[in-house]
Amino acid sequence: MARVSQEHLDARRRQILAGAARCFSGNGFHGTSMQDVLKEVGLSAGAVYRYFASKEDLIAAIADEAFRSIRQAFEEAAELTPPPTPDVLLGRVLRRVIDGQVYGLERRTCAALMVQVWAETLRDERLAATLEDGYTGMRAAWAKLVDAYRAAGIMHSDVPADDVARTMIATAQGFMAQEALFGGAEPEVLENGLRGLMSMDPQKIS
Amino acid sequence: MARVSQEHLDARRRQILAGAARCFSGNGFHGTSMQDVLKEVGLSAGAVYRYFASKEDLIAAIADEAFRSIRQAFEEAAELTPPPTPDVLLGRVLRRVIDGQVYGLERRTCAALMVQVWAETLRDERLAATLEDGYTGMRAAWAKLVDAYRAAGIMHSDVPADDVARTMIATAQGFMAQEALFGGAEPEVLENGLRGLMSMDPQKIS
Repeated sequence: MARVSQEHLDARRRQILAGAARCFSGNGFHGTSMQDVLKEVGLSAGAVYRYFASKEDLIAAIADEAFRSIRQAFEEAAELTPPPTPDVLLGRVLRRVIDGQVYGLERRTCAALMVQVWAETLRDERLAATLEDGYTGMRAAWAKLVDAYRAAGIMHSDVPADDVARTMIATAQGFMAQEALFGGAEPEVLENGLRGLMSMDPQKIS
Repeated sequence: MARVSQEHLDARRRQILAGAARCFSGNGFHGTSMQDVLKEVGLSAGAVYRYFASKEDLIAAIADEAFRSIRQAFEEAAELTPPPTPDVLLGRVLRRVIDGQVYGLERRTCAALMVQVWAETLRDERLAATLEDGYTGMRAAWAKLVDAYRAAGIMHSDVPADDVARTMIATAQGFMAQEALFGGAEPEVLENGLRGLMSMDPQKIS
């Protein structure tokens, strides 16, 4: 039997995940069966089960990959001096995540998948652990950025860095939720909104 | 037959919605049957169906009530001069919505229900219309606040008010999602995070 190259295995794995992502985002996690996934990717059960034993495995792999992509964008940003402000950075990450870079999904499909994953996470402990890992990593990355903002003299408040981190992550999460629910969540909207907020002066208030 | 008072009808309606909210948040929308709701509220089918013909009716009524509560908080805030800054306002709204004021649900249960509603909205057009209405109302309320911030000299950027509105709503949505997924999303975290962001000076960046 011919030896199969790692490239081939990786491509096949991505092909399966992309098909599963399309199924889940269209019909929800519970509305999708492994049979649906097989049909979507056009592969035999044997070919698919070799990589993923269950729907749970598929969704965990998809979530893991999305986190990896977002973390990478943060890590690149944190190496710049001065680091890009939240409006610039979140705009960049959103474009990267939602503009077809996750399994070639359209923006709204990708956002819908994220909401599906959240709902599933509420009753799947393994998925909850995957998301908690991803969230912890992002909090740490944002907290580092907050330190860098302070070092660069761009942020003046001494609130806990982790609180800013969680707020920034919340903004991105909510924006993706809006895209899933209503569509039309252009990254420019978030960039402008954050700029408006940064232009506020709470000190002026009595 | 004795005439039933409006107070009694309202109380009964709230009792049913509270029970349904507990069922949905615990077991998800699809994992809950009308039978489960009847059992939870301890009423007969006839008593419940008199108010709500279906699960869809129940979830739409719950979402509608949550929006009403949030809008009321915004409307009260917009009448103050100067209007409370986003950190103060969102902190207040979050406390109101998630601290037991929606059907007496605990904070995390309430947040989980919101995520369940989002997931269901992706495939239920009627629920999508309910959410779109609520979202439109909140965007308008926030945009008014942004005008008030500018009139009071607290916001200096001239980005579109609606962009700031959508960003603020996103922040609250994402924060609720974090509470649902991970717990521990204290309103203080969001208040601090927004204060940190407002203390940033994007002008200083070259």
